[in-house]
Amino acid sequence: MDGLLTSEHSTYGAGNPPEGDALHRLASLLATDMAATNAEIVARMASKVELIPQLAAHLIAAGGKRLRPLLTLASARLCGYRGDRHVRLAACVEFIHTATLLHDDVVDESGLRRGLASANSVFGNKAPVLVGDFLFARAFELMVADGSLDVLRILCKASATIAEGEVLQLSTQNDLRTDIPQYFKVIEGKTAALFAAACEIGAVVAQRDASTCAALSAYGAALGMAFQLVDDALDYAADQSELGKTVGDDFREGKLTYPVLIAYAAGDAQERGFWHRTIEIGDQTDADLATAFGLIARHDAIGQTIGRAQMFARDAKMSLGVMPDEPVRGLMMEAADYAVSRRR
Amino acid sequence: MDGLLTSEHSTYGAGNPPEGDALHRLASLLATDMAATNAEIVARMASKVELIPQLAAHLIAAGGKRLRPLLTLASARLCGYRGDRHVRLAACVEFIHTATLLHDDVVDESGLRRGLASANSVFGNKAPVLVGDFLFARAFELMVADGSLDVLRILCKASATIAEGEVLQLSTQNDLRTDIPQYFKVIEGKTAALFAAACEIGAVVAQRDASTCAALSAYGAALGMAFQLVDDALDYAADQSELGKTVGDDFREGKLTYPVLIAYAAGDAQERGFWHRTIEIGDQTDADLATAFGLIARHDAIGQTIGRAQMFARDAKMSLGVMPDEPVRGLMMEAADYAVSRRR
Repeated sequence: MDGLLTSEHSTYGAGNPPEGDALHRLASLLATDMAATNAEIVARMASKVELIPQLAAHLIAAGGKRLRPLLTLASARLCGYRGDRHVRLAACVEFIHTATLLHDDVVDESGLRRGLASANSVFGNKAPVLVGDFLFARAFELMVADGSLDVLRILCKASATIAEGEVLQLSTQNDLRTDIPQYFKVIEGKTAALFAAACEIGAVVAQRDASTCAALSAYGAALGMAFQLVDDALDYAADQSELGKTVGDDFREGKLTYPVLIAYAAGDAQERGFWHRTIEIGDQTDADLATAFGLIARHDAIGQTIGRAQMFARDAKMSLGVMPDEPVRGLMMEAADYAVSRRR
Repeated sequence: MDGLLTSEHSTYGAGNPPEGDALHRLASLLATDMAATNAEIVARMASKVELIPQLAAHLIAAGGKRLRPLLTLASARLCGYRGDRHVRLAACVEFIHTATLLHDDVVDESGLRRGLASANSVFGNKAPVLVGDFLFARAFELMVADGSLDVLRILCKASATIAEGEVLQLSTQNDLRTDIPQYFKVIEGKTAALFAAACEIGAVVAQRDASTCAALSAYGAALGMAFQLVDDALDYAADQSELGKTVGDDFREGKLTYPVLIAYAAGDAQERGFWHRTIEIGDQTDADLATAFGLIARHDAIGQTIGRAQMFARDAKMSLGVMPDEPVRGLMMEAADYAVSRRR
């Protein structure tokens, strides 16, 4: 893996190394807004039904990246927004994301999430579905209280698109006939749609024109694509202790991600037989994951996945070209590079 | 059971018996609106992701009662509404309900729903969660397109309340310390909230004043309570072939419903030991359901449950007292009686 996930913090002079990665620095720049968003999240997940905050806090306390609300705050800042609506909407975005995580955990039975035991391994399968529904509904309640039909339209559409992407992923699972366009359709839905919406609503609250809203939406969409491609690469390439979640989940679940599509397309008959048995039939032994890692390395499938992610990161940065050259824009551009260079 | 579920269609003269039950006659009165709502439901569950309409149609085709959209249409008619927004909103209500059914099926692993195999016994556990999410998001998209923040506020709040009720039900499951107020809290959430919202939005689209909206909301809430109490009675009292779903589901899942709460409170030490073993510990044999039926009969727990439902039905009818005496009001009142007298 050495050399594949290269650091791209080269915009900083060698004598002045940045503190932390681009996301940390973006969160630092927006520290006041981030703190307000965290307070909003904690306040709004309250319910008299104790199990709800208990289970929601399980995820919230796990300290996710808060990447999506960060994008809303950054976008609002870049658009010169001066009010406080963006804080509440950032919390909505995190609630929608958390709901999808809760439902995804039920679905995928993954063992680890954010380095802790997943919600459903602690609470069973029932509660995460219902608490996810609560967070989803609560997010929409908060948006209605905000009162912008444009924001509601954007986040409702994103929510429907996420669900479609997840269902499409399920439909293509274990099916080696899945092609690259179908894979992109899946990750556009399950990841890029909410990234795009999170950015766009920052421009909407700032009452910016349609082309600015579109530029920020395009930035988020491309960033989301890069982010998911790298996630899919890390599942076959990361150091498990560093990644903070189980490596090989996608393989075990028979997900057709970019690295597998590349390795399968380039594989010989014997290799295709391996993928057929392990991914399509789901007949796997303990040794198979190492074999999969080997085949993916042989065909440079991680390198190609990262290469594709770099193209999306470039698209993301280009989308911000129309925006004023402010510190927040610089960090948003660096965030796109970080999405590719990160190791977890 | 004979005599417990009495017919209350006595408002009709003996020489002029009504065709079908009150819900059928209400649906007949609103046949044009119901047909338009069905068309809207079919059109709006469309998606390029084939599994979505395929799975949604599985429930829709099963021909549920369409009770909740019927309430929206009836309420709008009673409020003199002349437009067509109520049709789209009725479809939203059904989508929200269908989403909760899909999620409830995953959660409860019930064998039968609407007389057909449940979605998750056919499609596994994954797809119903995700398709439910899609329908939920699609419902909110349609509401946003409708453009009324009042309608959105009502249905978002109802959705959050439903989830809270479901989580509370989960928290009280297998716990004989559950009391009647907690049980009412559960069914207020899981059933009455959407009944109330479905009725209220019919008044909101008709732009009626706050007291009319409140009256229709109160009608729906009380109707929902009656409906759920009878559902809970039927789970211990119905003829399974007539009911169209499995009898004894609540018992097997250790749900603390009204009949059990009554029988447990009235039971002697030996009976309480039975409930402790079967409901709290969940240690059940094939013969236990018959024993449970016997204990519930001994303490007239079905009779008391139906009696409580009758009180809610009376409340529901009283709420409509402020409304004009039109045919639709008469049928809505009869629907409250039917909620109690029905055998399925």
